[in-house]
Amino acid sequence: MTTHKLLFAPSMKEIALEEGRSVLDGAREVGVFIDSQCNGEGKCGKCKMRILEGATSPFTPEESEFIGQAERLQGYRLACMARMVGDLSVLIPEENVLSAEASKKIFSKRSAVINPAVKGYAVDLSDNGTDTQQAYFERITAYLESRHEMEGLAIDIEALQNLAPVMRQSTDGLTAYVWMDKEIVAVSPRSDERYFGLAIDVGTTTVALYLCDLEDGSVVASASTTNPQVLFGTDIMSRISYSSHHPNQGVKRMQKELIHSVNALVEQMASNKGLRASQILDVTVVGNTVMHHIFLGIAPDHLGLWPFSPSIQGSVNVKAREIGIEVCPSAYAHVLPVEAGFVGADNVAVLLSEEPYNLDEISLVVDLGTNGELVLGNRERLISCSCATGPALEGAHIACGMRATRGAIEKVRIDPETYEVDYAVVGTVGWASEHPSGELKPVGMCGSGIIDTVAQLFKTGLIGEDGAFRGNDKKTERLRKGRSGVLEFVLASKDGTATGDDIVLTQKDIRQIQLAKGALHGGCRTLMHHLGIETLPRMVIAGAFGMHIDKDNSLIMGLFPWCEPEKIAVVGNAAGHGAYLALVNKEKREEANRIARQVEHIELALEQGFQKEFVRALSIPYKKD
Amino acid sequence: MTTHKLLFAPSMKEIALEEGRSVLDGAREVGVFIDSQCNGEGKCGKCKMRILEGATSPFTPEESEFIGQAERLQGYRLACMARMVGDLSVLIPEENVLSAEASKKIFSKRSAVINPAVKGYAVDLSDNGTDTQQAYFERITAYLESRHEMEGLAIDIEALQNLAPVMRQSTDGLTAYVWMDKEIVAVSPRSDERYFGLAIDVGTTTVALYLCDLEDGSVVASASTTNPQVLFGTDIMSRISYSSHHPNQGVKRMQKELIHSVNALVEQMASNKGLRASQILDVTVVGNTVMHHIFLGIAPDHLGLWPFSPSIQGSVNVKAREIGIEVCPSAYAHVLPVEAGFVGADNVAVLLSEEPYNLDEISLVVDLGTNGELVLGNRERLISCSCATGPALEGAHIACGMRATRGAIEKVRIDPETYEVDYAVVGTVGWASEHPSGELKPVGMCGSGIIDTVAQLFKTGLIGEDGAFRGNDKKTERLRKGRSGVLEFVLASKDGTATGDDIVLTQKDIRQIQLAKGALHGGCRTLMHHLGIETLPRMVIAGAFGMHIDKDNSLIMGLFPWCEPEKIAVVGNAAGHGAYLALVNKEKREEANRIARQVEHIELALEQGFQKEFVRALSIPYKKD
Repeated sequence: MTTHKLLFAPSMKEIALEEGRSVLDGAREVGVFIDSQCNGEGKCGKCKMRILEGATSPFTPEESEFIGQAERLQGYRLACMARMVGDLSVLIPEENVLSAEASKKIFSKRSAVINPAVKGYAVDLSDNGTDTQQAYFERITAYLESRHEMEGLAIDIEALQNLAPVMRQSTDGLTAYVWMDKEIVAVSPRSDERYFGLAIDVGTTTVALYLCDLEDGSVVASASTTNPQVLFGTDIMSRISYSSHHPNQGVKRMQKELIHSVNALVEQMASNKGLRASQILDVTVVGNTVMHHIFLGIAPDHLGLWPFSPSIQGSVNVKAREIGIEVCPSAYAHVLPVEAGFVGADNVAVLLSEEPYNLDEISLVVDLGTNGELVLGNRERLISCSCATGPALEGAHIACGMRATRGAIEKVRIDPETYEVDYAVVGTVGWASEHPSGELKPVGMCGSGIIDTVAQLFKTGLIGEDGAFRGNDKKTERLRKGRSGVLEFVLASKDGTATGDDIVLTQKDIRQIQLAKGALHGGCRTLMHHLGIETLPRMVIAGAFGMHIDKDNSLIMGLFPWCEPEKIAVVGNAAGHGAYLALVNKEKREEANRIARQVEHIELALEQGFQKEFVRALSIPYKKD
Repeated sequence: MTTHKLLFAPSMKEIALEEGRSVLDGAREVGVFIDSQCNGEGKCGKCKMRILEGATSPFTPEESEFIGQAERLQGYRLACMARMVGDLSVLIPEENVLSAEASKKIFSKRSAVINPAVKGYAVDLSDNGTDTQQAYFERITAYLESRHEMEGLAIDIEALQNLAPVMRQSTDGLTAYVWMDKEIVAVSPRSDERYFGLAIDVGTTTVALYLCDLEDGSVVASASTTNPQVLFGTDIMSRISYSSHHPNQGVKRMQKELIHSVNALVEQMASNKGLRASQILDVTVVGNTVMHHIFLGIAPDHLGLWPFSPSIQGSVNVKAREIGIEVCPSAYAHVLPVEAGFVGADNVAVLLSEEPYNLDEISLVVDLGTNGELVLGNRERLISCSCATGPALEGAHIACGMRATRGAIEKVRIDPETYEVDYAVVGTVGWASEHPSGELKPVGMCGSGIIDTVAQLFKTGLIGEDGAFRGNDKKTERLRKGRSGVLEFVLASKDGTATGDDIVLTQKDIRQIQLAKGALHGGCRTLMHHLGIETLPRMVIAGAFGMHIDKDNSLIMGLFPWCEPEKIAVVGNAAGHGAYLALVNKEKREEANRIARQVEHIELALEQGFQKEFVRALSIPYKKD
């Protein structure tokens, strides 16, 4: 039987599957969780996914019940109906169930100053004093400049093309939308239309969007999706490599895929909220330096080479249409500044959100995504570095690892007497022990679950300070030799999981986590040495991953240096919040440029002390000499 | 036999032609001049033309000898080979034999100040003091801002995308091309590359291009072609009407055809001169207000309606790529300001070239194209108006009229005794009488030839002050009743013409010319009343048409008020020269905006005295009461 390669993004799991079998079959075999309530009969529509590359069997009538024309053109299919006819790459959309909750938390925390870069101004041309033979644009600017602090106003070409039709529709007034008091980006014959802005947080793995009302600053919708660039590699180094190996076209392709996803989400949010995408008049964008470059269509090749210089450090204003973002075509996208090659606009946004530069107390701000970015300091001085934590904390390269999406074990406790395991699963409430036995069917474990497990294994003595299983103690049958002869700890046995396989943490997994923690903890220590401090007065943990972690377990396993738990704040997607702040308050844009220039960047690889700190930090807990 | 409609642009002559016959056959029948040395055998390649709309017989092997792949894709064919299979519109390229000569004359007249908007700056990054970890853009701006008077430099997105590759190719230096000391529009790893600018004069009928070296201001090439918008109507009112009747798409279509022609000429000039179009880093554009709007993609519908307000009066800077001009994609196109609805950027450019605002003496500047635009004044005050001269002065709506291209009778003299006619023909040297009899085979007569004829007919008494032929006098057989019973004067009989038909001037033609002259002369008088002057101290005649006219004959027939012939300057395409000046000297752009605002515009239709002046000016010569 002919088999074809089937690749699942974003997990990048791969399987050789017989011709004619469905994508859902393949997902089940390789352990990729796809929801299917009708058991593959094309009746529930839950297994919707997107074809990234390759051909499949023809679109079926069943699918047209759940997939409209627009989605169909974008490659959407039901996994149970799409069958193998050749090599295939598919993207399984992740239901990021916690993102709404998480964003709510951080967005409600502080009230933002509302002073957007784009503002709507009523223009009343009924005034008898106005010379009606004067050109439209000059009449409008004369009105605006005499009433507001504006001078030398320009107008976007598309807005200019639209001026005469708007004048025709309006009897004596219109609304002019002005960007930065400099340029008219849109005109409308109405005076009562709401207008919006879009904050985009481009993560290596996840893209998050916040749609905001620019008049009152309220977030009217938010959404997130997998960054489809995972197809080209799960981490930034592989994206750089893809670009290098595909000169000119590589970056264009990655940019196009990203923008495509953004546009799909924008369209979805707009139609849910009953508004037009053309009412979105401003955009802000954050992301790490590689995402920043790819977003702007700049091949990031040089970011992988010494001295890791970005093409540009300061913020960039570019027309949305130049990038292909389908909002009002005259709108600008404001891309926030980066700090250095590996500390990007996302980190600047985290700082905008947390403002450690306005405090006397020294803060350590940790942003944990696919990379770990650290900033330590206060109003006097800020130093930053990037830690190569690797993807283990996001569940990648871990035997039963997965991202913190539905079905992931996110919290773990192990009874110190019986070694019995209890866990909480993303998408359900409470602990497994509070549900009827076997009701919670986990799919795998995410970073916080892994950290909990390691910490609890250490606490119960099942692993030592060196992270090695004490296999000879035979304390519990959960600790066993796995298929490949490596010791592993069973968290859930196959009769209680969604995949029909045991969920285990292996010795190899623990090593991966130790490397990640070594890099992170070592990075923190190196920054502390630079500022000459021994203990952390205050700590902020940002990033989706941080939302799930247990402070105590993290401190037990020494993920970062000791800090009083009540002085540790877990803030969620602060990068997205920073992008939002720059959207609703233009002053924040200047602040971002100032801060980005001010932060001192340290290249850990060049730091003499780092290697020693890294090795020390491999121990559980951190071993002080 | 099935016949199909065959339309010839730019003359807009039309014929019903049998299926299977060639375009060349049709041209000969309808009296459109197409050069053919091989008599339609596909061997000389002289009858190359472009299909605008409709299908024809397949491309033949003969044609591939003269038409390359690129031209073929653009619709080029040989008129002798393309046969009718359905309705067809074709564009007959005009060899504007005098344009090079004309532009040379005006460009050599004055030396321009060279201070272009785009300048190349060498950037040396070998300096040891430079922080190599700094972002590329910031390193370049730090260098430039410390050495030149620049601050807050920005960079175009495409130039930004190109930065890293340029840094890679260059060892320690590069050239940054900076627009208006504000924005880097291009970077090059070389230091010795020439860079260019393009001045575009968009006429209703003809588009003229000047390619200039931006370092020394020299014109390295110039070219002109028929504005393909003639397909949508020969005058501006019909272009407006085409736009109104085809909402949204009409203006896009006209813009696209125009830009297509510009790109074809640019490509041709660049390849002739061995340079790349991407070396063109700046563009200036002039044109009347309707051309200005269409160029910018603004539907000109409102320019046809009271109060004839343009969408914008001031100059517009727009990225060449936004308009589709295929030069360096980051280059700006600077579109000069307009004065009012019917006095456009072309008139501003004429003023930039002639500078009547720097003189104490009052000048009348007349720009004669498809429309007539007048400016009267000096450093104290400038007033302008637009005259609806109609297309008669360009030879349209005249029985044997044509534009001033090869084969047109451009000068005429009539012997007062014998009434014998002598003439000069565009593309040949000297008078017909100086050549062997019948050697000069004229095709038709252009505006200057028509004016000469009317003046000479008046001088010899063959027409009266009212313009009517004195048919009863029977002075010459050249004055006869034509086919439709209307009196006409024979300039050349059919055995001496290229068309095989007599070339005549009819009574109806004279009426057309009287109307044109009435509008023009009446407009001049109205402006003179406004300034309170009775005679013209000085006069400037600009425009391609003006190049051919005979001052004495024009004064005889009263085309404009009396002025000492030696105080009349005929300057050619001053609009193109103004576009050139704004290209090579950015100060001229400010000057243009100042002048455009300063010129007072008069709407002739609303002027009480105009109607009276118009009627008076119908007489030959002008009848003072």
